[in-house]
Amino acid sequence: MKFLKDDFMLHSDYAKKLYFERAKDLPIIDYHCHIEARDIAEDKKYDTITSLWLGGDHYKWRQMRACGIEEKYITGDASDYDKFLKWAEVLPRLIGNPLYHWSHLELKKYFGYDGVLTPETAPEVWELCNRILKNMSAKDIILSSNVKIICTTDDPVDSLQWHKQISDSDFPVKVLPAWRPDKILDISSTSFNSYIAQLSKTSCIDISDWNSLKMAIKNRLQYFKNLGCVLSDHSLPYVMYHPATEDEINEILLSVFSGVTLTSEQISKYKTMCLLFMAEEYHTLGWAMQLHYGVMRNTNTKMFDLIGADTGFDCIGDSSPISQLSQFLNVLATKDTLPKTIIYSLNPNDNTSIDTVIGCFQDETCAGKLQHGAAWWFNDNKDGMINHLTSLSNIGTIGNFIGMLTDSRSFLSYTRHDYFRRILCEYFGSLVEKGEYPKDYDTLGKIVQDICYYNAEKYFNF
Amino acid sequence: MKFLKDDFMLHSDYAKKLYFERAKDLPIIDYHCHIEARDIAEDKKYDTITSLWLGGDHYKWRQMRACGIEEKYITGDASDYDKFLKWAEVLPRLIGNPLYHWSHLELKKYFGYDGVLTPETAPEVWELCNRILKNMSAKDIILSSNVKIICTTDDPVDSLQWHKQISDSDFPVKVLPAWRPDKILDISSTSFNSYIAQLSKTSCIDISDWNSLKMAIKNRLQYFKNLGCVLSDHSLPYVMYHPATEDEINEILLSVFSGVTLTSEQISKYKTMCLLFMAEEYHTLGWAMQLHYGVMRNTNTKMFDLIGADTGFDCIGDSSPISQLSQFLNVLATKDTLPKTIIYSLNPNDNTSIDTVIGCFQDETCAGKLQHGAAWWFNDNKDGMINHLTSLSNIGTIGNFIGMLTDSRSFLSYTRHDYFRRILCEYFGSLVEKGEYPKDYDTLGKIVQDICYYNAEKYFNF
Amino acid sequence: MKFLKDDFMLHSDYAKKLYFERAKDLPIIDYHCHIEARDIAEDKKYDTITSLWLGGDHYKWRQMRACGIEEKYITGDASDYDKFLKWAEVLPRLIGNPLYHWSHLELKKYFGYDGVLTPETAPEVWELCNRILKNMSAKDIILSSNVKIICTTDDPVDSLQWHKQISDSDFPVKVLPAWRPDKILDISSTSFNSYIAQLSKTSCIDISDWNSLKMAIKNRLQYFKNLGCVLSDHSLPYVMYHPATEDEINEILLSVFSGVTLTSEQISKYKTMCLLFMAEEYHTLGWAMQLHYGVMRNTNTKMFDLIGADTGFDCIGDSSPISQLSQFLNVLATKDTLPKTIIYSLNPNDNTSIDTVIGCFQDETCAGKLQHGAAWWFNDNKDGMINHLTSLSNIGTIGNFIGMLTDSRSFLSYTRHDYFRRILCEYFGSLVEKGEYPKDYDTLGKIVQDICYYNAEKYFNF
Repeated sequence: MKFLKDDFMLHSDYAKKLYFERAKDLPIIDYHCHIEARDIAEDKKYDTITSLWLGGDHYKWRQMRACGIEEKYITGDASDYDKFLKWAEVLPRLIGNPLYHWSHLELKKYFGYDGVLTPETAPEVWELCNRILKNMSAKDIILSSNVKIICTTDDPVDSLQWHKQISDSDFPVKVLPAWRPDKILDISSTSFNSYIAQLSKTSCIDISDWNSLKMAIKNRLQYFKNLGCVLSDHSLPYVMYHPATEDEINEILLSVFSGVTLTSEQISKYKTMCLLFMAEEYHTLGWAMQLHYGVMRNTNTKMFDLIGADTGFDCIGDSSPISQLSQFLNVLATKDTLPKTIIYSLNPNDNTSIDTVIGCFQDETCAGKLQHGAAWWFNDNKDGMINHLTSLSNIGTIGNFIGMLTDSRSFLSYTRHDYFRRILCEYFGSLVEKGEYPKDYDTLGKIVQDICYYNAEKYFNF
Repeated sequence: MKFLKDDFMLHSDYAKKLYFERAKDLPIIDYHCHIEARDIAEDKKYDTITSLWLGGDHYKWRQMRACGIEEKYITGDASDYDKFLKWAEVLPRLIGNPLYHWSHLELKKYFGYDGVLTPETAPEVWELCNRILKNMSAKDIILSSNVKIICTTDDPVDSLQWHKQISDSDFPVKVLPAWRPDKILDISSTSFNSYIAQLSKTSCIDISDWNSLKMAIKNRLQYFKNLGCVLSDHSLPYVMYHPATEDEINEILLSVFSGVTLTSEQISKYKTMCLLFMAEEYHTLGWAMQLHYGVMRNTNTKMFDLIGADTGFDCIGDSSPISQLSQFLNVLATKDTLPKTIIYSLNPNDNTSIDTVIGCFQDETCAGKLQHGAAWWFNDNKDGMINHLTSLSNIGTIGNFIGMLTDSRSFLSYTRHDYFRRILCEYFGSLVEKGEYPKDYDTLGKIVQDICYYNAEKYFNF
Repeated sequence: MKFLKDDFMLHSDYAKKLYFERAKDLPIIDYHCHIEARDIAEDKKYDTITSLWLGGDHYKWRQMRACGIEEKYITGDASDYDKFLKWAEVLPRLIGNPLYHWSHLELKKYFGYDGVLTPETAPEVWELCNRILKNMSAKDIILSSNVKIICTTDDPVDSLQWHKQISDSDFPVKVLPAWRPDKILDISSTSFNSYIAQLSKTSCIDISDWNSLKMAIKNRLQYFKNLGCVLSDHSLPYVMYHPATEDEINEILLSVFSGVTLTSEQISKYKTMCLLFMAEEYHTLGWAMQLHYGVMRNTNTKMFDLIGADTGFDCIGDSSPISQLSQFLNVLATKDTLPKTIIYSLNPNDNTSIDTVIGCFQDETCAGKLQHGAAWWFNDNKDGMINHLTSLSNIGTIGNFIGMLTDSRSFLSYTRHDYFRRILCEYFGSLVEKGEYPKDYDTLGKIVQDICYYNAEKYFNF
């Protein structure tokens, strides 16, 4: 039984033409992912398809749990082969799920397998993949995926040694750090003070108050910039706006340094000020700021205690106040210090609101300065992407969209760019076929190329 | 003029094949409905199509009011024939409404009428239906609908005498009670104390505090279990989580017993604890827990005073905090006492959130332990069902879905299972036709059968 | 390159038949717009297509800003020709955006241009339009658009002199005022007292307390009624319900008259009472009440200070409590003083909720007494309209829908009625083609005509 055809997801001639002639062969800029620079630097190899596929992929783990699979076959001590067989049992039940598509796209692209993974074919797929993995490394995958630029996700205290090592090597792909300072904002964490101590050490700045914290941040921002960083990323429950004076923030910091527990108002004020400060720094540096929100993390205490964070127990949180997001952007826009900003909510109900709010803060410094980021995490599937593209088309200027990212921990996920490109071309092709856009191939082809590659290249100024 | 073809709702060959070969002839498990066991036990008959169709169906009443029909033709004292004519006037204006489809599916299946009900055809339809109703009873309808199991909705103080009578008879269909303890939770109701008195009497346990209330509940749970009950149902404004100690709950109960009015905090605490207690009992009993929320009831005071509850004046309520639902599930999961749980929100905006939250609490005790219940009430239409299925596919494992229920007060509503099966097969068939799932007929056919019948049979352990 | 075909947006034969035979040639009732009566009375002419197209259209301005166009080409002092060229640069990037369709519909209908506006064709389009504009006035456009009735948007203190002048002329189109009393409700505005002074003067009633304010309002309502007004319009952050006594309201008014700053509770109480009072007056007058909510206005302080309100810096606001809307309607329904009411939310997430809430307050005084208003502003695009129609079909009685309005400041926007009619016919045609509604052409054709014209005519009782 065959599955994926070359024209997978492409239903009209126009869509196929756009995809095959304009989108398919473009290189990839993966400006947001969670792979480890170290794995690239050391050119990691994988013993089995299980370690590559099921080693850290909580998307798959969730589906296995939903099918009643025992945890030992998921994150436990079962053998790699048994885990793989369990995944092969689950997969056929995932009708309409992106994992079904991603898995088969990966099997086809990286292992040349164009059949269907089922319990029956699992043994042959296991053999095939493992045989090929013997001669496949992280760098091989990246190169064969036509990736030009990768931005990882890094803590401000990270030494970025692996990025340096890659940069100093002859590996032709840029592997750049991205600044993810969640721990600097997370003032209510029990490990905040020890984190600040670490930050003091790394920056060689003794952080004793708000001013010295800002200096330390600036120091690390410069360090990241020197290694090619061009964007930041924030994970927030929601984008808050609770203004305060610098003096208040200083007092709040001194309180927490002396061990006092903060009120929720103090926490909000600190987070607001701290994010505003960094946003202005990003503006100065010419960086883009990514705001990711709407997640409720680690909802299952029992499983968190057993296997920790990022293991498949996160979900969409309560609705986020768009008014505070708007006020936050406004205070920066008013001071002419709003950086390029990319907004992602985990709740697809926010699509339209986000598309309307970004329209309020665009300006002449850059086309598409404010972006509604690509459909994210639980929405990173065909319908979620179409909903995102449709909303963006209806309310914004889709021609300015900076396109896809993998947001992935796996090297095989570059197929998601291909998946996105197919869906994008099908969306545009369908509009043309229905007579909702003229058959202006030059214009459309160029816009497809922009969204798949050139807009991001220009936006981040690589 | 003909209307419903055999392949109604089925547009591709693959969809037709799945429906006609795998779905159509499966028996029905209607695990949630509002029909009266007494009507089955007494094998109720209906004088006219009006009493069967318009006697208690507030879905239809709303549409009649929306068309400016006088209330006397809706719930008033107009003749059955005049009421029927008014409904026939309204129906053609309901383009795209499920009532249009349901009405015609019912006319075709139970009365052999495959034309269109209009003001012109109303007299002949009236004659036809009433003639057939002379030889049609509740049991006839159930049997001809291929129903195997019915779960009604019952108050804990119900004697369940009609269920016993049916069970003792030779009627081959299981008619089981379902536990709906809304009145036990509704501590702020003016009739709470009198209800508790009734519960005391029925359970033969003098309810004087939280402990004795729990004993009375357990007593009635066991009574329901002995009569075959396998699931509970809760109607809630939202799923709340406001923890308290058992002592606090006891004090709150003593307060209300002595006539003190409770604070909203006390009410939330009581409801939380009471629902947690029952959930743990369901877990022990092996029952499933249904949580229905997002409704605002009896919004129209004038009409409520005139004709009471459940007459067509309910709507979607304010948005529900998914965080409290998550915390509620978490406290049970952490104690390993989370029962099988089916979650339904009246607000379709909650679809994605629910699909993400159920993924956080699945475990190895059961495939699909947490379920996102079928599109409910105002969403129980083609688009609502497709939205539900699509979200479930994208985020969860649709192969585990336990499928459809009627939620109806009418014996004719079994056609809704047929409607659902057609939409499900069309959804899957369309994915196959578009190349998004392989032409693996054995697997797909089996999953269709699972969703239409076998998953529910296994899940509820009938 | 050609673009718009005659069957634009119409994909099935049934849809085409409905559109061409029943919808296309119906006259237009534009019961909600923002054009100036003065411009009609004076039969305004336009020098260039820029002044007509880009002079006040903040929809276009937003897209230009999103493309990084300098403000001088948007609202600044660049030449009309340069502004037009910039718009022609932006337009091709608006794939899937309603502005793309509207612009080309307008070019085709009013200027006979059926090509595509691009940077290349811009010079010829510029020439063509400007040449035609020499012989085209506001009245010409209205007449050639087959408009029968226009309702503008007017402040209670407006003299309505231009409406009178038009009414006294031989212009065959009714141009009626609509009552928009936002400033009467906006008690927290710094200009509230001066506005009340103006209202005192215009009504010749000395407004010194709540009673005299009510008298002044009644005076102006009668004035509007005498000039043919049949509907009101309210722009609200959300529909609030915060009840108070008349005495409380009087005290609140006296406070604000004496310069005291109000609490947010006082503001809500005043707005609730004031809206309830007016609603009851509308009921007495037989008017319809429009409630528009869900907007957050003037989010960008910098741009507001530079170029003021209604310049493209508004967005969707935080979610609105449907419970208060329901309570507000209920208090009126209970007193039998609920006027015909049309509800619009800027947030498309509210579609289903609104459709359920209007179903709770329908009554026998009028078919479709409560309406879910047409997809509005950011939702006034193909997908937004289809979502609105689909939700209304599924939950309400679409046959009663009063249809489209332009909500526009431009005389060219009557094409939006055409756009709507195409989408409506395609929606119905598609249901018929899929077998979801019978091929009952007489019924469907009549309902199409009702929605496009006759329902509004009857509903507003013109």
